[in-house]
Amino acid sequence: MPGGELRYPTPPATPPQPSTESVVEDESWVWAQIKAEARRDAESEPALASYLYSTILSHSSLERSLSFHLGNKLCSSTLLSTLLYDLFLNSLSTDPDLRSATVADLRAARVRDPACVSFSHCLLNYKGFLACQAHRVAHKLWTESRRPLALALHSRIADVFAVDIHPAAKIGKGILFDHATGVVVGETAVIGNNVSILHHVTLGGTGKSGGDRHPKIGDGVLIGAGATILGNIKIGEGAKIGAGSVVLIDVPPRTTAVGNPARLVGGKEKPSRHEDVPGESMDHTSFISEWSDYII
Amino acid sequence: MPGGELRYPTPPATPPQPSTESVVEDESWVWAQIKAEARRDAESEPALASYLYSTILSHSSLERSLSFHLGNKLCSSTLLSTLLYDLFLNSLSTDPDLRSATVADLRAARVRDPACVSFSHCLLNYKGFLACQAHRVAHKLWTESRRPLALALHSRIADVFAVDIHPAAKIGKGILFDHATGVVVGETAVIGNNVSILHHVTLGGTGKSGGDRHPKIGDGVLIGAGATILGNIKIGEGAKIGAGSVVLIDVPPRTTAVGNPARLVGGKEKPSRHEDVPGESMDHTSFISEWSDYII
Amino acid sequence: MPGGELRYPTPPATPPQPSTESVVEDESWVWAQIKAEARRDAESEPALASYLYSTILSHSSLERSLSFHLGNKLCSSTLLSTLLYDLFLNSLSTDPDLRSATVADLRAARVRDPACVSFSHCLLNYKGFLACQAHRVAHKLWTESRRPLALALHSRIADVFAVDIHPAAKIGKGILFDHATGVVVGETAVIGNNVSILHHVTLGGTGKSGGDRHPKIGDGVLIGAGATILGNIKIGEGAKIGAGSVVLIDVPPRTTAVGNPARLVGGKEKPSRHEDVPGESMDHTSFISEWSDYII
Amino acid sequence: MPGGELRYPTPPATPPQPSTESVVEDESWVWAQIKAEARRDAESEPALASYLYSTILSHSSLERSLSFHLGNKLCSSTLLSTLLYDLFLNSLSTDPDLRSATVADLRAARVRDPACVSFSHCLLNYKGFLACQAHRVAHKLWTESRRPLALALHSRIADVFAVDIHPAAKIGKGILFDHATGVVVGETAVIGNNVSILHHVTLGGTGKSGGDRHPKIGDGVLIGAGATILGNIKIGEGAKIGAGSVVLIDVPPRTTAVGNPARLVGGKEKPSRHEDVPGESMDHTSFISEWSDYII
Amino acid sequence: MPGGELRYPTPPATPPQPSTESVVEDESWVWAQIKAEARRDAESEPALASYLYSTILSHSSLERSLSFHLGNKLCSSTLLSTLLYDLFLNSLSTDPDLRSATVADLRAARVRDPACVSFSHCLLNYKGFLACQAHRVAHKLWTESRRPLALALHSRIADVFAVDIHPAAKIGKGILFDHATGVVVGETAVIGNNVSILHHVTLGGTGKSGGDRHPKIGDGVLIGAGATILGNIKIGEGAKIGAGSVVLIDVPPRTTAVGNPARLVGGKEKPSRHEDVPGESMDHTSFISEWSDYII
Amino acid sequence: MPGGELRYPTPPATPPQPSTESVVEDESWVWAQIKAEARRDAESEPALASYLYSTILSHSSLERSLSFHLGNKLCSSTLLSTLLYDLFLNSLSTDPDLRSATVADLRAARVRDPACVSFSHCLLNYKGFLACQAHRVAHKLWTESRRPLALALHSRIADVFAVDIHPAAKIGKGILFDHATGVVVGETAVIGNNVSILHHVTLGGTGKSGGDRHPKIGDGVLIGAGATILGNIKIGEGAKIGAGSVVLIDVPPRTTAVGNPARLVGGKEKPSRHEDVPGESMDHTSFISEWSDYII
Repeated sequence: MPGGELRYPTPPATPPQPSTESVVEDESWVWAQIKAEARRDAESEPALASYLYSTILSHSSLERSLSFHLGNKLCSSTLLSTLLYDLFLNSLSTDPDLRSATVADLRAARVRDPACVSFSHCLLNYKGFLACQAHRVAHKLWTESRRPLALALHSRIADVFAVDIHPAAKIGKGILFDHATGVVVGETAVIGNNVSILHHVTLGGTGKSGGDRHPKIGDGVLIGAGATILGNIKIGEGAKIGAGSVVLIDVPPRTTAVGNPARLVGGKEKPSRHEDVPGESMDHTSFISEWSDYII
Repeated sequence: MPGGELRYPTPPATPPQPSTESVVEDESWVWAQIKAEARRDAESEPALASYLYSTILSHSSLERSLSFHLGNKLCSSTLLSTLLYDLFLNSLSTDPDLRSATVADLRAARVRDPACVSFSHCLLNYKGFLACQAHRVAHKLWTESRRPLALALHSRIADVFAVDIHPAAKIGKGILFDHATGVVVGETAVIGNNVSILHHVTLGGTGKSGGDRHPKIGDGVLIGAGATILGNIKIGEGAKIGAGSVVLIDVPPRTTAVGNPARLVGGKEKPSRHEDVPGESMDHTSFISEWSDYII
Repeated sequence: MPGGELRYPTPPATPPQPSTESVVEDESWVWAQIKAEARRDAESEPALASYLYSTILSHSSLERSLSFHLGNKLCSSTLLSTLLYDLFLNSLSTDPDLRSATVADLRAARVRDPACVSFSHCLLNYKGFLACQAHRVAHKLWTESRRPLALALHSRIADVFAVDIHPAAKIGKGILFDHATGVVVGETAVIGNNVSILHHVTLGGTGKSGGDRHPKIGDGVLIGAGATILGNIKIGEGAKIGAGSVVLIDVPPRTTAVGNPARLVGGKEKPSRHEDVPGESMDHTSFISEWSDYII
Repeated sequence: MPGGELRYPTPPATPPQPSTESVVEDESWVWAQIKAEARRDAESEPALASYLYSTILSHSSLERSLSFHLGNKLCSSTLLSTLLYDLFLNSLSTDPDLRSATVADLRAARVRDPACVSFSHCLLNYKGFLACQAHRVAHKLWTESRRPLALALHSRIADVFAVDIHPAAKIGKGILFDHATGVVVGETAVIGNNVSILHHVTLGGTGKSGGDRHPKIGDGVLIGAGATILGNIKIGEGAKIGAGSVVLIDVPPRTTAVGNPARLVGGKEKPSRHEDVPGESMDHTSFISEWSDYII
Repeated sequence: MPGGELRYPTPPATPPQPSTESVVEDESWVWAQIKAEARRDAESEPALASYLYSTILSHSSLERSLSFHLGNKLCSSTLLSTLLYDLFLNSLSTDPDLRSATVADLRAARVRDPACVSFSHCLLNYKGFLACQAHRVAHKLWTESRRPLALALHSRIADVFAVDIHPAAKIGKGILFDHATGVVVGETAVIGNNVSILHHVTLGGTGKSGGDRHPKIGDGVLIGAGATILGNIKIGEGAKIGAGSVVLIDVPPRTTAVGNPARLVGGKEKPSRHEDVPGESMDHTSFISEWSDYII
Repeated sequence: MPGGELRYPTPPATPPQPSTESVVEDESWVWAQIKAEARRDAESEPALASYLYSTILSHSSLERSLSFHLGNKLCSSTLLSTLLYDLFLNSLSTDPDLRSATVADLRAARVRDPACVSFSHCLLNYKGFLACQAHRVAHKLWTESRRPLALALHSRIADVFAVDIHPAAKIGKGILFDHATGVVVGETAVIGNNVSILHHVTLGGTGKSGGDRHPKIGDGVLIGAGATILGNIKIGEGAKIGAGSVVLIDVPPRTTAVGNPARLVGGKEKPSRHEDVPGESMDHTSFISEWSDYII
């Protein structure tokens, strides 16, 4: 998790920080998979072959493919694709952390989302994945004090994908923004590793004062669709936030908060604790029996 | 309703399955209306005439007009409008079911939405209508095992309209996606006939296992804005889901579920049952007196 | 507040209606700030200079810059940028009210949103601001009985910004649509002055009957993210609606409604009343202690 | 004829300099014709109606229509249509001379070119007409010392129309550039009134020294296809230059020069003189009998 | 040769008019060649594969490929690619003559131009070929009295390819417009079968009177670069016009005209006659010894 | 001169082959000039500043600026700007010869063309310069056996600039293609160093046989507008070809050929010889007195 703001222990399910060497190998392996998938799809579907060649098969590396795709998705009549392509390629080429985060996010979608049929499907079609990769570049620009450019990029991401992540927000690796439309992540928010966040989720602020005012999301957290989390609060590692919940205060690790206002499943005194890592297991509804039983 | 997953009787308000002949007649009638509306608008507003001619008045049929409009709306620098136009026109020309669904959806918007001033207004401007028609073509591609193309189309719909309907999802006829921004419909979801769904509605899954994991929505259901329905559950025919509700278990036919977590209006033992078909009557708030009475 | 539907006294924090002269001065001052900001950013970031010159620095007035930017953002292959530019420029040039509203909205974002680092940041990048300015022009067209054109513009705004404001809706000045994605405002809705509305907020209707059926929002109201307000009800001046709330009945002035269904903080008999103007103070969460206390 | 470099008397066929009033009337009459033609064509050809509305029928004046058309023809990804539209409209709106020249050129094409079926045909489709109008604006910028902008415009005209007229070149009124592809007109060239110039014509310079080095073309001259005229020489009023001629020295008024190198028809001592004004009569080949008689 | 204006016997080298059946077979064979070439090129050059798939390999027939390519080449912001694609596809699909002319032109380029390395090279890259195919469709529209549309298409061809063929001009089959830039063909011109025309060639008129005023080019003629042929004159079958010639009177069959003004090689009394068909043999310079001998 | 086909001694006016070091210095100096010019123009003309920043001022090197400009000029809907940008940048970055040729061409235009007011004027606006730089990259691809890509690029150059240079043609350094529209250079043509070629010049072949069939142009040659040179002939170093000439046989060094058919000034036995290098002195017309004297 970036920034160290949360000190919850990393959940055991999280893989150890891999060596640079293995990261490069991993990147190569994933890129080879993507090319193989695209080649197979191009052969079976001529109508899509042009698209697959321009986005994937004509490129010599994952970062070139991704830079091309993002440049063409995010460009406008006043921010040309060549400028954006250059910007993305330059960032991705020079920063191995960005590339390993991309690979981790591809793996996250592939493993956690049963609708994700292939790595190339995620690379080409997942607006959450694409918005997140573009955000990482915007964040890098932000940390390099190129803020007007970071904000212009932020604006394009928000327009094109309807995903609004402030470029200052810190986001870990292995993130799945599933569906992603309507996600809002504020300036001082921090998101740990291996987190899964559904669409319409807000990590918002508390008012018009500046300073540290947005949520800190621990490793392995799962946040259900439409959940609203406001203020500089901690969502403990491995916690689960139910769909549609409104959360204004801390949620302890490995507990589940549901409802509007959110309450802890099991009660605030002795909340139920789960063993799995919801950000990875993606179990959205196992708390139903305790919560919503109006019918047999 | 497609697929037969739900066996609730079709509500009486639903018209009987019309003969092919009358469908064709109906299509002609609606298309004639659309042209007349567009002609009138072009005359009264020269600034819009070019748009109306290119999208409607220059075309010889509804499917050509719709294919042109969708092709131009959904194209990108890597998926050209000519390719998409061809794809839409080919599907719509050869599949009368697609065309009758289009007509039924146009009628649904016209009848149920007081802000829908004309058929052409819906055809040109309703992102829910356009996303739904494009989805039907993506679904057809999916069932023909052209999945990469279906997913590419799905991705464009999600980007352009912020409406995310998995191409495998089955959707009936006479559907109104009102406002539509932020709608998410999962892979194994089924939506019956004459259903009305407001914006930000989620028909989502339960986790990372594949298989049948999304809601089944009966005929004539009304789902209010921001409602989240998760899991392979049944929303009975003619049921109503209040705005902002979070629904994780079955809702019986012709009852109303509201709140987070949702509860049945009238109580789970003896829920109130209504006679009208909410998906058609669009009554969003008649349950207020039972539910929310903090002020006179 | 437009339309006079609400007769709540204007909150004292609202500035008095300024004279025409001071409005023009104010516009000039803000425009000078914007140019200075853009010049500074262009110097520090050559990659963005082209964008800043085309959108701001090459223009002789705020209305030209805004018309250019909106024309290029909202254009499509069937609605050309030159047509839209002409439309916006003509409206903004001839209607000083539109221009003073623009300036008031720029000030609102600058003052209330700690993430808004400059006026030019808002002008270029805030989809809520841009959608609102485009809406004002669509509304003007609507009142001039150019409804097909107003609806076409409405459709482009909904596609591009995922902000869906019916062109008939009346909106005051000094409005902040923060983040803005997913906002839906219905045909007969009225929004007062100095209101702040977060993303995913719905001001919706009640059913399929026409007529006056949408909320009336008083001056100085704050509506939190994801709140759903349905029906021809009044949200009193200076009231606050908590994030994720579902509100179906009137909310008195300077009270706070939270939850699904919403209830008044302090109880419906003696609701707590606050002194500040939440639409301006942007205090989203001070009611937590009364509402959601499951953990220390 | 601009600049006064040539003092040949204006040919009698040239109409007297009209009063401002009659120019305005004339402009209105031509514009009314254009609209009537476009309306008729739009009715008879729905496939073209969108084009005709966007280019002509949606505009309130000839200068708006022309500015729109030129802006969309000459724009590129780095010179946006809105910028060019603004530039053209501003020039044409404020300079009645530009507008009367446009009208005179429209009349010239209509009267002299039997293939010109209507004013609107010329306005929309004649690259020579369009290049000439755009040149006039570039020339105006040049004389206002906005040279970099004039040269950028020049470059766009040369790319799009393959017509290369230096922005410093002075061009009269009532000009027909027929077919126009490949025309090159140098920096210090001057073209009088009522001149007709075919495609591939060069009015070129003599070398690498600056200064006045290009041809001066008198009123009423006709220059045939592919003629090359080099150096600061005078082509007298009413002269005719045969197709493919190479002319390096002065040509007297109302004489005909043909061949490579050009010689005067009738001989240099007593050249044949014609009474008509070739720039208006467009007689390309009446000199054949004297010149080329290899077969009966 | 279309129209029968010239009654010169067809040169023996011209193949007999093939049966419909064999034309269809021929078209299939050429299309199969084109796909095979494109497949081979796509494999050897990934950077071009996207282009080859979109233009050729994703299409099911030559007419679809050509319609797509022309639609995308000739479109503009006011004449959309989908409209043009539709127009071309409709014409090519319903008119086998257009298709057999396309095939004959492809063969002509392949056989006569040593720089033409493949059929696909011609289909994709030869502006003369593309302009000619688009002209044939414009001509068809012209003959169907859809003149404004024909002229709009004519204008696009002239802008994009710098090839200006009046839509009324009649053009045979097996035509090679080599290089093609700057070609101008007037309204009443007729071009026979198996003609080869180089760039900058003009088939022009004589003045401002209407009526039949342009050249008639017999079968098998070769016209060299930059030749200018003016007036309603006949260029006899199998004649050759030297580069840069200016021709104002008839040229007998199988003779060679060169120079400015053109004279017949061998003299006007007893011109040299050749046996080959220059339009097919492409012999541009064999007349040198008789004509231009200033150096050993 | 590339290829060594011509063995004429290099004219003394040609600078000695510079060392790599000085080439790099020269490139830096020219690039610094270009940036200074663009900065000055951007300050004086805000309407052009966006263009100047995107094309020049935002780039860190001449090759990036040129690649960006060519990518945006030559792209189409099927050959995206990002692909072309990548292609140009890769070629220019890795091949110092390409870069030194670019600089030499910039100098040639600046020195020889009195209308060339600055290096940036040439870089941005000269279609001959841009076509030539793009050709060099196409030629590099050709020599690397990437022929389909080279031909696709060739086609784009011919469409956009109306300059048709076969990618196999060899072109030296210090070339000025002045005006450039209509230039055609065949497959086996060779052009030496310090050559100046005007518009409409053809270096063409002789027929349909392959093999070495195009002209070889020596160092320092000047070819006037519209000249047609056909066949595998030699134009000796320092020769001059008059405008509109048709040249089919060798021209000796430092002589002048004029007319159609061309003859040597001074006669074929004892042609006049000049001392200057016409490709650099650009003297187009000094031979007039000997050639064309029909009038005083």
